[in-house]
Amino acid sequence: MSTQPDFHAWMQGVQAQTEEALGRFLPDAGTLPARLHAAMRYTVLGGGKRVRPLLAHAAGELFGGANEENADAVARAACAVEMIHAYSLVHDDMPCMDDDDLRRGKPTVHVAYDEATALLVGDALQALAFEVLANINATKEDVAPARQVRMLRLLAEAAGSAGMCGGQAIDLDSVGLSLTLEELERMHQLKTGAMLRVSVLLGALAGRDIDADEQDALAAYSRAIGLAFQVVDDVLDATADSATLGKTAGKDAAANKPTYVSILGLEPSRALAEQLRQQAHAALAPFGEQARRLRELADLIVQRKA
Amino acid sequence: MSTQPDFHAWMQGVQAQTEEALGRFLPDAGTLPARLHAAMRYTVLGGGKRVRPLLAHAAGELFGGANEENADAVARAACAVEMIHAYSLVHDDMPCMDDDDLRRGKPTVHVAYDEATALLVGDALQALAFEVLANINATKEDVAPARQVRMLRLLAEAAGSAGMCGGQAIDLDSVGLSLTLEELERMHQLKTGAMLRVSVLLGALAGRDIDADEQDALAAYSRAIGLAFQVVDDVLDATADSATLGKTAGKDAAANKPTYVSILGLEPSRALAEQLRQQAHAALAPFGEQARRLRELADLIVQRKA
Repeated sequence: MSTQPDFHAWMQGVQAQTEEALGRFLPDAGTLPARLHAAMRYTVLGGGKRVRPLLAHAAGELFGGANEENADAVARAACAVEMIHAYSLVHDDMPCMDDDDLRRGKPTVHVAYDEATALLVGDALQALAFEVLANINATKEDVAPARQVRMLRLLAEAAGSAGMCGGQAIDLDSVGLSLTLEELERMHQLKTGAMLRVSVLLGALAGRDIDADEQDALAAYSRAIGLAFQVVDDVLDATADSATLGKTAGKDAAANKPTYVSILGLEPSRALAEQLRQQAHAALAPFGEQARRLRELADLIVQRKA
Repeated sequence: MSTQPDFHAWMQGVQAQTEEALGRFLPDAGTLPARLHAAMRYTVLGGGKRVRPLLAHAAGELFGGANEENADAVARAACAVEMIHAYSLVHDDMPCMDDDDLRRGKPTVHVAYDEATALLVGDALQALAFEVLANINATKEDVAPARQVRMLRLLAEAAGSAGMCGGQAIDLDSVGLSLTLEELERMHQLKTGAMLRVSVLLGALAGRDIDADEQDALAAYSRAIGLAFQVVDDVLDATADSATLGKTAGKDAAANKPTYVSILGLEPSRALAEQLRQQAHAALAPFGEQARRLRELADLIVQRKA
């Protein structure tokens, strides 16, 4: 029998740790400018599946980050990727982008506050993500500075125009167009895949240096779960209701956005997600039993209902 | 007779170098997503006084960054602060913030492109600023990684909610209020001062490590020029025309925003700017003749006409 906690308990533990760490890294709501800081906390705390922090922690455990001396670095990696993700949702929901009123079952930031505040919340959260990562050494000398610079560089690349922002730009440009499967895949590899990939890499690097073979294996895993994540999102958008999703369902079809379901159909999309889940498992083979949490997260991403 | 080039020639040289370096660090307009990259280049290239890069270069020369081995690090520091500044202008000009159509004599980004693109341009430029700084070591081993982490941390702090974004939030909240001189000063120290200060510090750190006394002296200089910059901005907003400024003049008064001119009056504001110029000079006394460029920049900031 395994002495490791079962997956569900592990996941809840990481989610609770992440909530606590985010609360600690975010400026206090009483610190000036109070309205901005309150809005930042409203944005980041109290919700979300924390998929990116879960990936960072799973990779962190695989590469030694579960040791006490690396725990702070893993927590910072997890919070940095979650802050980038949270800021991207705030800007994405704004009227000039997707114009969405509901996110994680709560009013979006520009609805709960105002548009100018939503803009600044996103901008400040992006800066804070880099600050949290740049402060690893300030609290504990657990990561060599050269490795820390590598982490900061990877985060900047994943967040920028060759990563997440670039994917969003392609997404904007493709509304009403009929994309090929390859074009759709490329868009999602930037829009969602880049940040999922860097979540895994930062978690690993918080533990120790990784070599080229290890980085390749993690990249193959990330590519598979990144695509699976999007395929499942499209399936859920086409089949689940808004209450279950905590956001407006059916928006993509209504906006005439190309999706896996619109290109492949529903059942072939489900089959593709399952195939990608198996690819993710295969990519982890070199790491053996130790990669258990990353395997379980691939299963979660494909089998989730929201 | 001095063998150093005179100030005007030096300034033009730095501006030309900065334009070249920005063009090199920005993704090519032909690289996908092409529209986003074209908009990023439209935003950053071909305009601006480049005050922050000038400060970075002046501090870089003072702390050894003019040596060939440090030139790349100084150029990256200069471009990183300029990219943060440029992104903040793009977001500031959007309809939900200042709603401005004209910037540096050109249509603002949301006018020339669209609002969604302006939002993404700003987001991607912020990420690129950190990427450019994180890549110092990738091209040349001229900065120790621990010093590079310190630079990244300082940039994140200056750009975030305890710096530039925080100042913008206070600015938003203060429209229509009558601020005291202290409150106005605090707002500007965050909104403009934090990025001017970090421009000086990053330029210095691109050259070599700086000690606490040196950092204090540079901070005192930066505080003085940061305030002077804003006092002169308010004077120009009240007295110059839009064509000279390259942006809409008289907006602050029209928006009922508190300014130095509205609180102190015009002539006392001019006297304050001159007093701050002298404070900036005094702060540089420990560095002697070597700090010549920083002194000249203080003069420029106070004596500029646009």
